[in-house]
Amino acid sequence: MIGKSIIGFSRAASNGRTFNAVDPSTGHNLEPAFHFASSEEVNLAVRLAAEAFETYGRATGRQKGILLSKIAANIEDISDDLVVRASQETALPPARIKNEIARTCNQLRLFAELVEEGSWVDARIDCGDPTRTPLPKPDVRSMLRPLGPVVVFCASNFPLAFSVAGGDTASALATGNPVIVKAHHAHPGTAQLVGLALSRAVRECDLPEGVFSLIYGPGSDVGTQLVQHPSIKAGGFTGSRTGGSALMQAAANRPEPIPFYAEMSSVNPVFILASALRDQTEAIANGLAASVTLGAGQFCTNPGLVFIPDVGSEEFIARMSALMAAASPFTMLTSTICSAYREGTMALNANARVRLVSAGQSGIQDAAARASLFETDANSFLEDRSLCTEVFGPATLLIKYSSRAQLIACARSLEGQLTATIHGDEAELNHSNDLVGILEQKAGRVIFNGFPTGVEVGHAMVHGGPFPATSDGRSTSVGTRAGLRFTRPVCYQDFLDSALPDELKDGNPLGIWRLIDGDMTRASLTVAV
Amino acid sequence: MIGKSIIGFSRAASNGRTFNAVDPSTGHNLEPAFHFASSEEVNLAVRLAAEAFETYGRATGRQKGILLSKIAANIEDISDDLVVRASQETALPPARIKNEIARTCNQLRLFAELVEEGSWVDARIDCGDPTRTPLPKPDVRSMLRPLGPVVVFCASNFPLAFSVAGGDTASALATGNPVIVKAHHAHPGTAQLVGLALSRAVRECDLPEGVFSLIYGPGSDVGTQLVQHPSIKAGGFTGSRTGGSALMQAAANRPEPIPFYAEMSSVNPVFILASALRDQTEAIANGLAASVTLGAGQFCTNPGLVFIPDVGSEEFIARMSALMAAASPFTMLTSTICSAYREGTMALNANARVRLVSAGQSGIQDAAARASLFETDANSFLEDRSLCTEVFGPATLLIKYSSRAQLIACARSLEGQLTATIHGDEAELNHSNDLVGILEQKAGRVIFNGFPTGVEVGHAMVHGGPFPATSDGRSTSVGTRAGLRFTRPVCYQDFLDSALPDELKDGNPLGIWRLIDGDMTRASLTVAV
Repeated sequence: MIGKSIIGFSRAASNGRTFNAVDPSTGHNLEPAFHFASSEEVNLAVRLAAEAFETYGRATGRQKGILLSKIAANIEDISDDLVVRASQETALPPARIKNEIARTCNQLRLFAELVEEGSWVDARIDCGDPTRTPLPKPDVRSMLRPLGPVVVFCASNFPLAFSVAGGDTASALATGNPVIVKAHHAHPGTAQLVGLALSRAVRECDLPEGVFSLIYGPGSDVGTQLVQHPSIKAGGFTGSRTGGSALMQAAANRPEPIPFYAEMSSVNPVFILASALRDQTEAIANGLAASVTLGAGQFCTNPGLVFIPDVGSEEFIARMSALMAAASPFTMLTSTICSAYREGTMALNANARVRLVSAGQSGIQDAAARASLFETDANSFLEDRSLCTEVFGPATLLIKYSSRAQLIACARSLEGQLTATIHGDEAELNHSNDLVGILEQKAGRVIFNGFPTGVEVGHAMVHGGPFPATSDGRSTSVGTRAGLRFTRPVCYQDFLDSALPDELKDGNPLGIWRLIDGDMTRASLTVAV
Repeated sequence: MIGKSIIGFSRAASNGRTFNAVDPSTGHNLEPAFHFASSEEVNLAVRLAAEAFETYGRATGRQKGILLSKIAANIEDISDDLVVRASQETALPPARIKNEIARTCNQLRLFAELVEEGSWVDARIDCGDPTRTPLPKPDVRSMLRPLGPVVVFCASNFPLAFSVAGGDTASALATGNPVIVKAHHAHPGTAQLVGLALSRAVRECDLPEGVFSLIYGPGSDVGTQLVQHPSIKAGGFTGSRTGGSALMQAAANRPEPIPFYAEMSSVNPVFILASALRDQTEAIANGLAASVTLGAGQFCTNPGLVFIPDVGSEEFIARMSALMAAASPFTMLTSTICSAYREGTMALNANARVRLVSAGQSGIQDAAARASLFETDANSFLEDRSLCTEVFGPATLLIKYSSRAQLIACARSLEGQLTATIHGDEAELNHSNDLVGILEQKAGRVIFNGFPTGVEVGHAMVHGGPFPATSDGRSTSVGTRAGLRFTRPVCYQDFLDSALPDELKDGNPLGIWRLIDGDMTRASLTVAV
């Protein structure tokens, strides 16, 4: 492993500034040192990407599917090395890293299937009519096309599934966009291993080198340069609200604004209705404590707010309290994330309207965090908006409500969320249309009797939600709909059949689903007589 | 007709400031005076819209279809009055207004059909598997849902089809969003007539009054207030780059940024290849002159740049010159638009690298404009970026190229466009993959052997394009895809069937197309054994 950026098929390290990854469980530096990319190296990566787009943007679904499958296979080949390095860099247990490798490869293969099948392009044909009066009706056809080079920022909390070859990269590559990845400073070695596997796949597929580059450097510098570069056409980011908002603004304030998909901040409220509290106390407390502490609470979907009925909540709280108190200390991803977590829990501790119910065991490392359970009441929650702030880590805040009206008021007061969850029995859920109606306006995903962590990767998943959960609530960063973020519809009027993309040709050579004169069909186009 | 805003089912005029429409063909004021809405009236309209969204956002496709059809019928009922008033306010001929009324009603009915059929919601179901290990697989379903109250700005150049009940309003209402329309100061009376017809339809359908309001007032004031209001969730605009950019920034800089769809500026390049110049001189010159001068050139799709081969262009230029010189003077929509047109043509006249080929007849009114034909060469075009600026009106600039490389360089140099057109014979078009490849990155619609004016309203149309053609190149403002602008996917995990929207219920009661485990089908969901 050498500490250099991957610029197309070359390695670059003209900049003398370097940084090292840190093992969060020891606080010690890990070798090698990684060079920040220079401004020229960043520009070269973008130029190569723009050149590659001219061919890769027109690659067939089959070609892109082979690339994605090859990337997955290459990652599996280095799985053992990845487990070692990623565990060192993140303090996440090897079993979690193995799961994340599997998820990453599954995502890549799901997108490979999607583009090999091909119907995702939303092909539409409105047949012409030369005999129409007063003017002939033109033949109009359209489909989704890639935007162009995309910059992807690795996420601290998903060293694989939302990093170099993660969901953003897979969805951008699947839909025909070259990708430039900005590595996360917390796991540069993991990024390098995956980056080399990805770059090898590009070469093995005889695709142009600019299809992929991996850049090291600080987000405030290299990241901003990438977002502002005129040849970059979109961006994907998973991280903090501060970082995401700054990049959103940079993207919006360009001479040519570009879409920037930042997945930022969510407290994932859980609403426990009276029937659930009555019948499912133990199961919900167990499930919730596990969800709050999973991965040291370092998930975007971590349940940070739990609304419970005031009456009858003693047993539930006692159970949650015991579970959280018994939790071993957690080593967080970085000492910075751990400091932010400590500040967040200290702010709750210092809030006169909030009570610390219990805390887990403490550790000695810089990056060691204790699980924390807090409680407050609905009136306090409604009056103090600071209680909605995400505390990233293994903490949650119970909010006791004394009436349905209070519950509804709390739901209405929320900002945009990735998820919202309701626990209740069948009768009570069926009488919660009002709550469901509010929550589907607030969140990308509404869950019955489950827990928000564990995001299923499929066609129907929505991992998105109104601002500030994401920069653009019209999108998802997980599941096959994620590819749509990096596309735009392009229309072809009165084209020769031979000049049309295969997806729009009369004969439907790819056999895809198309909307012909408003009707969904896989048939070829029969010529009107 | 009374000069007051329509706030839900009430009329409002608490503000003393008024303005009058002007007949551009006489310069005289038209009665009555229209009151600017007060800030309180604007807030009331938004509050009503937010309240209405709680029910209208969950209205069925059938209910929304009936509303849209009723709006169309109510507009047809007042067609005669509309023709008189709209012609007075815009100087557009009655025949054009009649056509625009027909297009407006067709658009409304197309959206009615779309939502009554229902498959547009992109329903997706990934079936659960309780037996999966290590964790059960949840049942995940998702579909598109409305964003919330939308503000729509009327377009100066489409008093009907892109104004009160135009494409933006139809697409927002169809997808479940209440609409607040800001009238254009050039045609407030037309807005009022249509607004009353629309408001009557809302009442006739027993829908909440906040589904629709119509507001008078300056864009810089009332318009900005609307875009910045926290309860407004999206905006639609057709107009100048200056106005659109200001509103885009206002939308992006809100505490909660919202999508803002501005259709702004396009010069709609036309590329004439050698074979077309050779074989189709007369047909192309005739078609082009008609397209440039149609509606006094006041179309977003007006062809403002025409690239022609240097060699053999004399006859084509002579023909175009004669046609443009013979054009009668045009009365433009407003004296402001006409002044801007005169400034634009004067700037071309004053440019040493541009030659005025011919000018049409001149008129005496303030708003009278002459057709103008200019020419330059490709080198000048490539060196002077001011030649890409849109001149809104009946003018076009011929650019003579002397090589294929120059043609390609010109294409590459363009900003984002609504349309791009290529004229050539079959052999030459089939050898123009390079040009098509560039243009499909630059434009929303690429046309073979046609003219960009005349936007067919259907399922496949794309009236959009990369910035600055629009604020968001991922969208179209014409055709059924336009509705997607005002939606976001919402996901339901492990929901009770009874609590799901009909579109996602097991039995598929609406009979819509759905993606079940990745396969497109209209079947109901068979329970896995």
